[in-house]
Amino acid sequence: MTQTPFNASQDSQQTSQAPNYGFGTTVDASFEETVTKVTEALKAEGFGVLTTIDVKATMKAKLNVNFERYTILGACNPQLAHRALEIEHNVGLLLPCNVVVHEAHEDDGSARTRVDVADPVAMLGVIQNPAMQELASEARTRLERVVASLKAAR
Amino acid sequence: MTQTPFNASQDSQQTSQAPNYGFGTTVDASFEETVTKVTEALKAEGFGVLTTIDVKATMKAKLNVNFERYTILGACNPQLAHRALEIEHNVGLLLPCNVVVHEAHEDDGSARTRVDVADPVAMLGVIQNPAMQELASEARTRLERVVASLKAAR
Repeated sequence: MTQTPFNASQDSQQTSQAPNYGFGTTVDASFEETVTKVTEALKAEGFGVLTTIDVKATMKAKLNVNFERYTILGACNPQLAHRALEIEHNVGLLLPCNVVVHEAHEDDGSARTRVDVADPVAMLGVIQNPAMQELASEARTRLERVVASLKAAR
Repeated sequence: MTQTPFNASQDSQQTSQAPNYGFGTTVDASFEETVTKVTEALKAEGFGVLTTIDVKATMKAKLNVNFERYTILGACNPQLAHRALEIEHNVGLLLPCNVVVHEAHEDDGSARTRVDVADPVAMLGVIQNPAMQELASEARTRLERVVASLKAAR
């Protein structure tokens, strides 16, 4: 059985760094509680969670590897998705918008949870179309409000 | 109730054009049969289908819009995904690899099915890391074989 390396310094880095293709926040709440909060916050902005990938369970089942709690939620705003599909039929290759929720361990040992959202502007940036870029900006604004609401609640 | 515009010339264009962030093929098989074939071909390359989004059903349920049969499969090769997560913890924002299967109508009226795969090199290109690029190339090679096997079978 393989152990995934997991140490405080590595983790501390993870909690503070957002990738250039996403944005997020770290919340003082359990993993389960955060998944519920994120799902509600997404709903308030018109995004349903269409898919859930339990990375921890998948890694255990497929590779017998121990992994932290790490879930990939596939969020979709049907109105925006429909508009995107009308602009470019292949855009399904870039949908839904991923939201990653994973355990984050602070240097002081406290358990927190990290939420990151894939930036629609970065994701849809491969499509050179002003209408798609406008739509991506609108999606980003909504998802930024999701993250802001999590920050306000923490 | 809104109707999604759907005409032969538009469609013919859709079947012949692969986007710059993916690659695929058009097969002479029904939609359902193609989903089964794609799932099997992915399995042969170590990719399981973790998620399925029925876009037609979602559009009908959420917007009361009629849409063609269009499914987004979330394909994941656990070994590659684990390596990717070890390289960059946030890579879950870019996983799984999408495979879109949708109805395609030819100019002669025959029903065919289009399969497109998101190009892992394009998707993971936002991560500036040689190890990730190498992994993305490996994933692409496998997914190219998936598409090639569909072409051979048609």
